[in-house]
Amino acid sequence: MDLTRCSLNSATVRGLDVDRVVAAAASNDFGGVGLWRDVVAAVGAEAAGRAAADAGLHVSSLCRGGMFTAAAEADRARAWDDNRAAVDEAHAVGAECLVLVCGGMREVGLDAARALIAEGVARLAPYAAGAGVALAVEPMHPMTAADRSAVTSLSEALDLVDAVGADNVGVAVDAYHLWWDERMPADIRRAGPRILSAQLSDWVTPISGELSSRGMPGDGVIDLAGFLGHLDAAGYDGLVEVEVLSDAWARVPEQALAAAVEGLRGI
Amino acid sequence: MDLTRCSLNSATVRGLDVDRVVAAAASNDFGGVGLWRDVVAAVGAEAAGRAAADAGLHVSSLCRGGMFTAAAEADRARAWDDNRAAVDEAHAVGAECLVLVCGGMREVGLDAARALIAEGVARLAPYAAGAGVALAVEPMHPMTAADRSAVTSLSEALDLVDAVGADNVGVAVDAYHLWWDERMPADIRRAGPRILSAQLSDWVTPISGELSSRGMPGDGVIDLAGFLGHLDAAGYDGLVEVEVLSDAWARVPEQALAAAVEGLRGI
Repeated sequence: MDLTRCSLNSATVRGLDVDRVVAAAASNDFGGVGLWRDVVAAVGAEAAGRAAADAGLHVSSLCRGGMFTAAAEADRARAWDDNRAAVDEAHAVGAECLVLVCGGMREVGLDAARALIAEGVARLAPYAAGAGVALAVEPMHPMTAADRSAVTSLSEALDLVDAVGADNVGVAVDAYHLWWDERMPADIRRAGPRILSAQLSDWVTPISGELSSRGMPGDGVIDLAGFLGHLDAAGYDGLVEVEVLSDAWARVPEQALAAAVEGLRGI
Repeated sequence: MDLTRCSLNSATVRGLDVDRVVAAAASNDFGGVGLWRDVVAAVGAEAAGRAAADAGLHVSSLCRGGMFTAAAEADRARAWDDNRAAVDEAHAVGAECLVLVCGGMREVGLDAARALIAEGVARLAPYAAGAGVALAVEPMHPMTAADRSAVTSLSEALDLVDAVGADNVGVAVDAYHLWWDERMPADIRRAGPRILSAQLSDWVTPISGELSSRGMPGDGVIDLAGFLGHLDAAGYDGLVEVEVLSDAWARVPEQALAAAVEGLRGI
């Protein structure tokens, strides 16, 4: 695929600071960068946003808000404060959306986790609207349900977004999380204009830790061209991020960059 | 739970031979054993079945047939031969069902894998019926979709079973594979009398290899009592196997037995 259609997520080149992420993206003709908050925090959101803008790059997303599912009220209050801070940072950095990793079910169980997520997203939506920030609910692979997201399918995420019913709330669709689901093609059609973020990586095995074991595009089993075709058919014309959370690739970020570029070109 | 309602799957005590699996089950008042084919093959299916029967134990399942998804016709022909052998062994050992691990999508892609699985089950069903053997299609966790099962939800498995439409074909429901799915409670109700096998283990993290990283009942996050409640409500009154595929526990099968017994009693 054409790299001007792509965005380089900072997690793919973990260890690089904002300036180096931006330089890496610009020199390879990416259309944007996706940024994680730790990378942004090191220089401040406004400076990070300026660095991207000066290089002609969109900030396709800021990652992440969410984590609504703590059992203790004090922990949920801290999450609320952190979510408002994340919205403010998304505004300051000029991100096209704030990705919400909604939180796992470990502390409260599945049903309560899903209820807390619905409540949390609904509560955050007007605050984000006031800051001009869009919220992208990210359904995640079921193997992350304990500790990252009790929202395990795009079907659920869309039901949640429908229930919240706010113009600035949509979904993030990541091939790594959704590829296995027989419902995915129909769900992407259903999502249509509510797709605020699209992300790619590949499914490689064995899984070595469920959070950071992803593969470069082309190294795994996912039909990424088919996934992009579903996005096209749904009318999505935004940037597509390459987001490869991988403890192995994180040891060699420059090599990860080269592999990501090659992988994307091969789709 | 009452151990007379439970069955000890040989994979939980990997390394023990049939006689020791049977002795372990009998001495702990299990109602049955679930057997893998390698364990059965070491003594022969009739001898294994006699050992269980002499100890007053049901053979709740034989694992496994399936693996219908090879790309090469010669490999699929070998799988067909192996599936017929598995049916014959299930008959000889007196298993209440043959569990089908249907095969991953790595070689052919998701859509073709699902088509090959539907074709394979439909083809095997009459042969199994002739041998008096029930086939239990096992939906597996999406993290196993590449190499073990392109059938990733009970919804899909039930659609497949409906399409095959044979009296001797049903499903195996395993809490480890299904716990995260919002559709699971309704799917178990839908499954009703088509539930031929029920299995338990627990979800523990981090995942260290997607095939053999399971936890003992009670050590993880799954609401196993809730799962059993869904089975009860669906009218399932068969044995519930404890099947803990775990490289860690496999190193200490006697300790695994003790932990499984304690875990089941605690549900």
